[in-house]
Amino acid sequence: MKNIFIIGCGLLGSSLLRAIIKKNISKKVFIYEKSKSNLNKIKKLKIPCILVNDFQHAVTNSNLIILCTPMSEYKNIVLKINPHLTSKNLITDVGSSKVESFKIIKKYLKKDAIWLSSHPIAGSEVSGPEHGKADLFVNRWSILIKDKNSKKEHLKLLNNFWKKLGSKVAIMTADKHDKIFSITSHLPHLIAYNLVKSAQDFEKKQKYSLIKFSAGGLRDFSRIAASNEIMWRDIFFNNNNNIIKAIELFIKNLNSFKKDIQTKNNKSILEKLIQTKGVRKKIIKLKQDINKPDFGRS
Amino acid sequence: MKNIFIIGCGLLGSSLLRAIIKKNISKKVFIYEKSKSNLNKIKKLKIPCILVNDFQHAVTNSNLIILCTPMSEYKNIVLKINPHLTSKNLITDVGSSKVESFKIIKKYLKKDAIWLSSHPIAGSEVSGPEHGKADLFVNRWSILIKDKNSKKEHLKLLNNFWKKLGSKVAIMTADKHDKIFSITSHLPHLIAYNLVKSAQDFEKKQKYSLIKFSAGGLRDFSRIAASNEIMWRDIFFNNNNNIIKAIELFIKNLNSFKKDIQTKNNKSILEKLIQTKGVRKKIIKLKQDINKPDFGRS
Repeated sequence: MKNIFIIGCGLLGSSLLRAIIKKNISKKVFIYEKSKSNLNKIKKLKIPCILVNDFQHAVTNSNLIILCTPMSEYKNIVLKINPHLTSKNLITDVGSSKVESFKIIKKYLKKDAIWLSSHPIAGSEVSGPEHGKADLFVNRWSILIKDKNSKKEHLKLLNNFWKKLGSKVAIMTADKHDKIFSITSHLPHLIAYNLVKSAQDFEKKQKYSLIKFSAGGLRDFSRIAASNEIMWRDIFFNNNNNIIKAIELFIKNLNSFKKDIQTKNNKSILEKLIQTKGVRKKIIKLKQDINKPDFGRS
Repeated sequence: MKNIFIIGCGLLGSSLLRAIIKKNISKKVFIYEKSKSNLNKIKKLKIPCILVNDFQHAVTNSNLIILCTPMSEYKNIVLKINPHLTSKNLITDVGSSKVESFKIIKKYLKKDAIWLSSHPIAGSEVSGPEHGKADLFVNRWSILIKDKNSKKEHLKLLNNFWKKLGSKVAIMTADKHDKIFSITSHLPHLIAYNLVKSAQDFEKKQKYSLIKFSAGGLRDFSRIAASNEIMWRDIFFNNNNNIIKAIELFIKNLNSFKKDIQTKNNKSILEKLIQTKGVRKKIIKLKQDINKPDFGRS
């Protein structure tokens, strides 16, 4: 690949930068980052890259443009890159929901410009370029979004790109993507935020200091409830229909557990508690988590 | 301490055995374990201890008796040890809920026998004596339950015992204990089970294979949803009133999130998402979790 232009250089953008440099898959990497604080951090990292303010030069000279900003920034970015885009640019993004963001892109992106969306299933509860890692994408899935207009050559190019970074690639429609990740990612994050909020409400009401006793379970949830709030607001709002359905399924199941507990229905609750145990084994077998009790923490 | 009698030797019991031997705090350790499969595993571990079938000898010769069985076994165990108990025995247990189990103990335990309940906030998603660890209690809280009949000498003895194993000790009433842990432990476990069940239901209905994409959040929950089902059924049933209140608070908050998402209420959702971030920092500051992104998994 000739040159790559990364727009937004937080955790994801800086991990991409590190991985691209490490794997030597681009001559130059242009970086646009609007936060001054992040810019200073990137300079300190001393990773070879060209920090730009000017979109024209970077867009004109890059064959791959990757958006790593919150999804609520897409419209602004599209309007900035539009004047300089040609059919030589392939644009992708790493956003976590696809149907709504694609509507924005379709509405504002210059006709004939080529956008093929990606979603690397990689991240962390920490934000900012200083936390990026070159191996963030290794053995992780990266989802490519296809529709009836997607061209094979662009799918192939992005497929090769993510594979060079160590990812496995799956291709699906935006609709299927948003349904799957409403359950495997968006609902779990919302539930984690909600559980931590409930613990805070309880602590306030009861005037008990209880966070220090969080090792019995709560601490696992606190990790993903520490994730970046702008990114997650964008996801919750963009994938709202699927997430609302997921919330409703979750509450229906929780009420069934509640009934088991109220009526001490031994058979019904044990069926549920046994059924769910298998998933952990499956996740470990599929190499989606490490095979160590307690995440190998201690 | 002269001798200790551990009744039930799964993850907790075998961790206690290992820690007691390592710290050399008892002359002999008697072990009662009813599962033949566990007994074979304990023999293979070759940790110095005396496996017993006979309660009389072990009770008569131990000053500390520790129940590490599921709480639904307490009545049976109490009836077995009753004939041999004297005022020389101090009995404790490691159960995760206290008000209901204390009712059972009060109803069946021999008059004048001394029971002072403990709850070490330590465990794992794996079960069985082969997974025990001598350092399971190090830097963990152990809660001692006091009521108006608790005597200082017994509190002091148990306090010393847990401190020798490396634990920090907190003393509170059964009522306060069950309220705190309904939020910091019991609700998180129920929520984890419920989230995994909802993902399974969704997978079945949509016929999508989605567990392989669990790295975006779901996998964190799968860990505690793999915990022992008998232990957790006992906890959910025993602490049912507090857990039902916790479920209701959780659903109320989740419906508030749902409304924010439906109405795209930016201010309200950001307030919630920002508020919860502080808890992770607090948990790490209180040394209840390690200070590494992603639990230091990778």
